[in-house]
Amino acid sequence: MATMQDVANLAQCSLSTVSYAINNTRPISAATRQRIEQAMRELDFRPNQIARSLASRRSNILALTFPGTENTLGSTIMEFVTGAAQAARERGFHLVVWPYAPAQADEMLQMSRQGLADGIIVMEVRRDDPRVRLLDEHQFPLTMIGRAEDGTDSRCVDVDFEQTAEAAVAHLAELGHTDIVLLNHSADSRDHGYGPTLRIAEGFHRVMGRRGLTGQVLWCDETPAAGRRAIDELTGRWPAVTAMVAMNEHAVIGAVGGLAGRGIAVPQTFSVLSIVTSPLMAQMAEPALTILHSPGADLGRLGVQNLLDQLDGRRPAPAPTLLPCRWEAGRSTGPVPPVIHRPR
Amino acid sequence: MATMQDVANLAQCSLSTVSYAINNTRPISAATRQRIEQAMRELDFRPNQIARSLASRRSNILALTFPGTENTLGSTIMEFVTGAAQAARERGFHLVVWPYAPAQADEMLQMSRQGLADGIIVMEVRRDDPRVRLLDEHQFPLTMIGRAEDGTDSRCVDVDFEQTAEAAVAHLAELGHTDIVLLNHSADSRDHGYGPTLRIAEGFHRVMGRRGLTGQVLWCDETPAAGRRAIDELTGRWPAVTAMVAMNEHAVIGAVGGLAGRGIAVPQTFSVLSIVTSPLMAQMAEPALTILHSPGADLGRLGVQNLLDQLDGRRPAPAPTLLPCRWEAGRSTGPVPPVIHRPR
Repeated sequence: MATMQDVANLAQCSLSTVSYAINNTRPISAATRQRIEQAMRELDFRPNQIARSLASRRSNILALTFPGTENTLGSTIMEFVTGAAQAARERGFHLVVWPYAPAQADEMLQMSRQGLADGIIVMEVRRDDPRVRLLDEHQFPLTMIGRAEDGTDSRCVDVDFEQTAEAAVAHLAELGHTDIVLLNHSADSRDHGYGPTLRIAEGFHRVMGRRGLTGQVLWCDETPAAGRRAIDELTGRWPAVTAMVAMNEHAVIGAVGGLAGRGIAVPQTFSVLSIVTSPLMAQMAEPALTILHSPGADLGRLGVQNLLDQLDGRRPAPAPTLLPCRWEAGRSTGPVPPVIHRPR
Repeated sequence: MATMQDVANLAQCSLSTVSYAINNTRPISAATRQRIEQAMRELDFRPNQIARSLASRRSNILALTFPGTENTLGSTIMEFVTGAAQAARERGFHLVVWPYAPAQADEMLQMSRQGLADGIIVMEVRRDDPRVRLLDEHQFPLTMIGRAEDGTDSRCVDVDFEQTAEAAVAHLAELGHTDIVLLNHSADSRDHGYGPTLRIAEGFHRVMGRRGLTGQVLWCDETPAAGRRAIDELTGRWPAVTAMVAMNEHAVIGAVGGLAGRGIAVPQTFSVLSIVTSPLMAQMAEPALTILHSPGADLGRLGVQNLLDQLDGRRPAPAPTLLPCRWEAGRSTGPVPPVIHRPR
């Protein structure tokens, strides 16, 4: 019986490319696809052999992996885990959590190859993530919450950052704000290619640009103390700014405290909109924050569904599934003040 | 070859009792111990058969289980996971997280019996916890972070709540406070027998009593909004209170906001000491909170060590291991005000 490696040899391409062609998980060129399909016919190779062989040694366990020692599993990320666990349970699977950072990709692969899970949901994906690369090399079924590499992989489910940036800026622009800053994740996360950091910055600049506005970005460590320092930087560098879009839920709490410490009233003279966050974090600030609530529970469910579709040999969606954030009103945004009286 | 069940039958006791006697994991009466030891001699039963048989089918995986859909894995709980994962890695084991609440004890047992872990660390233990009961019935190795039942089980590692209550009250008493309230977890957690809720309340009353003081307890849901409401209750019922010990890290953020909203200055006229919490949560409040830092990372390490001692047939500690919290100064406690001017 022909193997996928035989197909790859005959079609003169890599094993991964054969897998992408079979599972439609990444775009490949028409010429390559033709060579692969011809090789499959010549060898009488049936793609769903893979699904069948997987079915025979199923553990009925799905693993969700996230960088445990680097990130805190705050309430926002916990919504992903809860959504995924419930979806898995409904389909007769167990969900377990593996705390592996990208640097521990080897350990994670070892676990996968022991048959300890039928598939893996990779969270907090970096653009070039060794966990995804290794699993793909070993043909191990995976989905991603987030997007690796070029963002076309249909095994991804993610927040629609472009749409979220648009919704955030539109809300503040309607209130009359034109000088808007983005409080983003750290410069470190940007330099490591952390997808959300990069995508929200790109989206923010694009939607500001469409309105003829120039937005500023503050890169900020993920702590309230760093959020306080960001307000010092903001008031020093860009005193005309009247509104903040924040995608850094620990820092934004400190930022609101820093504004209060300088006598800058929220929302009377300064608006704060916290995005890709959870209602619990919104309540941590005074006043309670207006937010765009991360669709974590739904993404967790979709990640499980996408993975089970692969395991069952069903054809997945043709492109990544992106979900918008949900609007939840707090008391932290308001009309731009007619004249700004701000202590420097 | 004799089995543990043979020993139990001959000694006329339960299988669990034989296990407790062999592993010294719970106190049993001298008479019962004598019967078990005599049965073991008669049957030529060697206790470390258990350890050996376990060794032969080891997965090298330890599972840490916590009630995923009920609790948020905040930064404080995350310190346990990180400590346990590092300790496991150093000993050549993988740590995985199983999100099972007490009500899902059956599912957890199913995973355990599939050989998917060599032992389980149970977090957020209730006094009568079905997860612990089921695992014990099936002789599955476990340790607990927290304490089940009567609190004598040597497989437990936990925060020393008595000592923590003493340290908290001593600090506030030295500053001159005599009217002190405990902001505890919810009445619901108390009614479910959640250990930390019960132990801190008992410890608080005892250490206050030793000083001839009467402490009040506020039972509070685990949200900032509930913390704000608790301040309304506090100022209405006990206006003379000048200090709060808080063991509810989400609520305490709202409580500090609620105090500010009523013009009650922290720490000038009211002191707040947050206990069994993490430095990240301390920074969420304005002013930053003085805390007793939960020894989570060390407890995670000890939980792993205790479990591996059992797996290796080593004799565990004779009693639960309790660790104190660590003092970390913030800006939220100060001397009792000479005269209280408080808006009602």
